[in-house]
Amino acid sequence: MERIELWPVGVVEREGEGSAWWEELASRPCRIRVRPELREGLVGIEPGAKILVLFWLHRADRGRLLVHPRGDRTRPLRGVFSTRSPHRPNPIGATVVKVLAVDQGQGLLIVEGLDALDGSPVLDIKAASPRFDEGCLI
Amino acid sequence: MERIELWPVGVVEREGEGSAWWEELASRPCRIRVRPELREGLVGIEPGAKILVLFWLHRADRGRLLVHPRGDRTRPLRGVFSTRSPHRPNPIGATVVKVLAVDQGQGLLIVEGLDALDGSPVLDIKAASPRFDEGCLI
Repeated sequence: MERIELWPVGVVEREGEGSAWWEELASRPCRIRVRPELREGLVGIEPGAKILVLFWLHRADRGRLLVHPRGDRTRPLRGVFSTRSPHRPNPIGATVVKVLAVDQGQGLLIVEGLDALDGSPVLDIKAASPRFDEGCLI
Repeated sequence: MERIELWPVGVVEREGEGSAWWEELASRPCRIRVRPELREGLVGIEPGAKILVLFWLHRADRGRLLVHPRGDRTRPLRGVFSTRSPHRPNPIGATVVKVLAVDQGQGLLIVEGLDALDGSPVLDIKAASPRFDEGCLI
């Protein structure tokens, strides 16, 4: 299978690095800054909307196939594909977040609920959709 | 921002290409064949589980920033980031699907609900999670 090349569409910006634990990250709003040449792609995103953000877990270990869930060594090892561990061959984070504010001219989204570190490359932004995203609906 | 390189972790296999319209694709079960060296990553996935599949939309147009929703030209153009259009700078599909069967030794998952074409590279497989995936919960 052949290599796939991506260029980030934007980057996550947040003040105060703090903990890398996802609950703490997700509890503080942060910015997504979209590349200038891609800002037109934001047309139609309104405050209050839910969006699915795909981002690159740039500090992850791509060589791991088994993990202890949530890093708890008392729990048995599981395959990474059965978990949400950041460590996986293609470490792509996927989180539905709420849009608090949009500045399309500046290519900025302010979002709540994103468990991404400062500097994380953003790979894609999509409308959230119960059809595609909600585990309970299929 | 720098280039990111991915190698597919597997591929979607389905019989009968049929329509490329997502409802039709999602209505028929298909296989995900995981690369032999990554099969250990499937440990812990059980039949009945919901998983989030990230896959590469290998026929998409990566140059488009505005689309008519669902290809309907009577609807006004919107930015791709406010839609689920396959056409986008990094065309990554993201769909929560149901696992019907698992053969870890063969690296095979049979899944229901996946709107991916035959031959689509699979980029990642994760446990579905209401916390991360469900638009209604944040």
